[in-house]
Amino acid sequence: MLGSSAAIPSQKRACASQWITCNNRSLLIDCGEGTQMQLRKFGIHFQRISHILISHLHGDHFLGLPGLLSTMNLLGRNQGLKVYGPAPLQTILETFFQLSDTQINFNYEFIPVRTKERTLIFEDTGMRIWAFPLKHRIETYGYSIEEKQLRLKVDKAKAEAFNLQPTHFKFLSQGIDFELMDGTKIDHSDFTLPTHPNRMYSYCSDTAPFEKLASHLTGTTTLYHEATFLESEKARAIQTFHSTAMDGAQIAKSLGVKNLLLGHLSSRYPDGQKHTEEAKTIFQNSETVEDGQTYEIL
Amino acid sequence: MLGSSAAIPSQKRACASQWITCNNRSLLIDCGEGTQMQLRKFGIHFQRISHILISHLHGDHFLGLPGLLSTMNLLGRNQGLKVYGPAPLQTILETFFQLSDTQINFNYEFIPVRTKERTLIFEDTGMRIWAFPLKHRIETYGYSIEEKQLRLKVDKAKAEAFNLQPTHFKFLSQGIDFELMDGTKIDHSDFTLPTHPNRMYSYCSDTAPFEKLASHLTGTTTLYHEATFLESEKARAIQTFHSTAMDGAQIAKSLGVKNLLLGHLSSRYPDGQKHTEEAKTIFQNSETVEDGQTYEIL
Repeated sequence: MLGSSAAIPSQKRACASQWITCNNRSLLIDCGEGTQMQLRKFGIHFQRISHILISHLHGDHFLGLPGLLSTMNLLGRNQGLKVYGPAPLQTILETFFQLSDTQINFNYEFIPVRTKERTLIFEDTGMRIWAFPLKHRIETYGYSIEEKQLRLKVDKAKAEAFNLQPTHFKFLSQGIDFELMDGTKIDHSDFTLPTHPNRMYSYCSDTAPFEKLASHLTGTTTLYHEATFLESEKARAIQTFHSTAMDGAQIAKSLGVKNLLLGHLSSRYPDGQKHTEEAKTIFQNSETVEDGQTYEIL
Repeated sequence: MLGSSAAIPSQKRACASQWITCNNRSLLIDCGEGTQMQLRKFGIHFQRISHILISHLHGDHFLGLPGLLSTMNLLGRNQGLKVYGPAPLQTILETFFQLSDTQINFNYEFIPVRTKERTLIFEDTGMRIWAFPLKHRIETYGYSIEEKQLRLKVDKAKAEAFNLQPTHFKFLSQGIDFELMDGTKIDHSDFTLPTHPNRMYSYCSDTAPFEKLASHLTGTTTLYHEATFLESEKARAIQTFHSTAMDGAQIAKSLGVKNLLLGHLSSRYPDGQKHTEEAKTIFQNSETVEDGQTYEIL
């Protein structure tokens, strides 16, 4: 968790940004002012980041991006980078690069996100990335990162009872059917354990609660939801198209996710204790995040 | 000193920014990414800042500005703010405000700097601000802040010997001539001490050395000069339109300033010790700055 403040950063909470790993891939969601300093502070090898997902163009969610791209460039990055976000982000970045006479020397690709439904925006052998619309004052997207299971778990006892050898296990774990020397056909599913559903992390910031959100989040196992306000500021939340901790808990409960992480706290709150308390009245496995902490996706 | 790194910020040196006070006025020079966090970290009341001077549009010198203006706005600023810098900065700020749907609710004025000579860009009863061109890869300006002497020092012994009363001292200290009850004319200069030259702080970052710079800096008492490189990287300094510590010392010596502050160090150097050493071989009163330190203008 690189930054979990709302609009105004504080000493304890930096502007919005999260670093995520999934099957050895490295991603960044949002990139508020100061993200490159946070990455450095927490010792993250930021040249390995391959995807940056920007939710929307309020400053606290993207103003660290031009500086991070410049630094990656100055440090001689040669790996490609895909940046996803609302289309006008490209205008801002290009204006900046042009006026500062910056030549990006690595393979940098901007992919505009424009969708009213949940949409698959990237897939490789190890993960899928989905974008979906949120409900905020300006065009805003949430993202889900789904981990693909690279290997099946071999039912060792069964396989050994059938006299299969360790060399066969590799085929099994990759889901490959094969034939033994004696012609016996081996169906991998007979010797592997049933798969659990893929882990999926979904990021919802910034947003007001809205009915259709649940359908965008199908399959989510760990949900990050903004909780800018407490219930006592519910009117302010509605007015500014934000959520309370209980709004986040409500959606977590309706989805039946494994755990809920709350963040994007207004600077009016000294800590997140009450956010956690209020959320737990609805959904027990709720936690308010802290900058610099690592959270396992369940 | 809020930030003294060159292009890439480090844990010890943030992006370029300096906070200056002069006769109770509060100014910011440059506003690199993270400046609002540095202002907060060092406990500076940033709503009191009345002038922001931006040298040029390389990201490490201005990318903190949109975020700082947004935060000032969100916190209900009502005092006016003047921002000076190269003309295209206005385009960037307006693009950002438009796309993020930000309404600046305080009296905010952008004044484009366009000059090939030293030019007075602001004056009030307590200070003068000058802008002058530097020599860098893109349009870049340096700034001088001149402190006006608000009061003359009364020669008490002389005034009391002449039987002048404390009520007269106020006129004297303000440089006002007056007449006593008996018709004696009092010339304030007969009863006040000679003034010393005004203190003047000049900021030169980023720049290659160039002949005309000295004339832009006439009257400077404390000089801040960039020292991105050491002599061993002189070729790199020339190539990138930057200076070495010895370049800064040379200009300090030719001007006869009281002291030289060096900053904008490349991240390749672990500290500024060698910069100070190399500068001192030319100009004794040289010092390399550190973030979070306060420096008196002499």
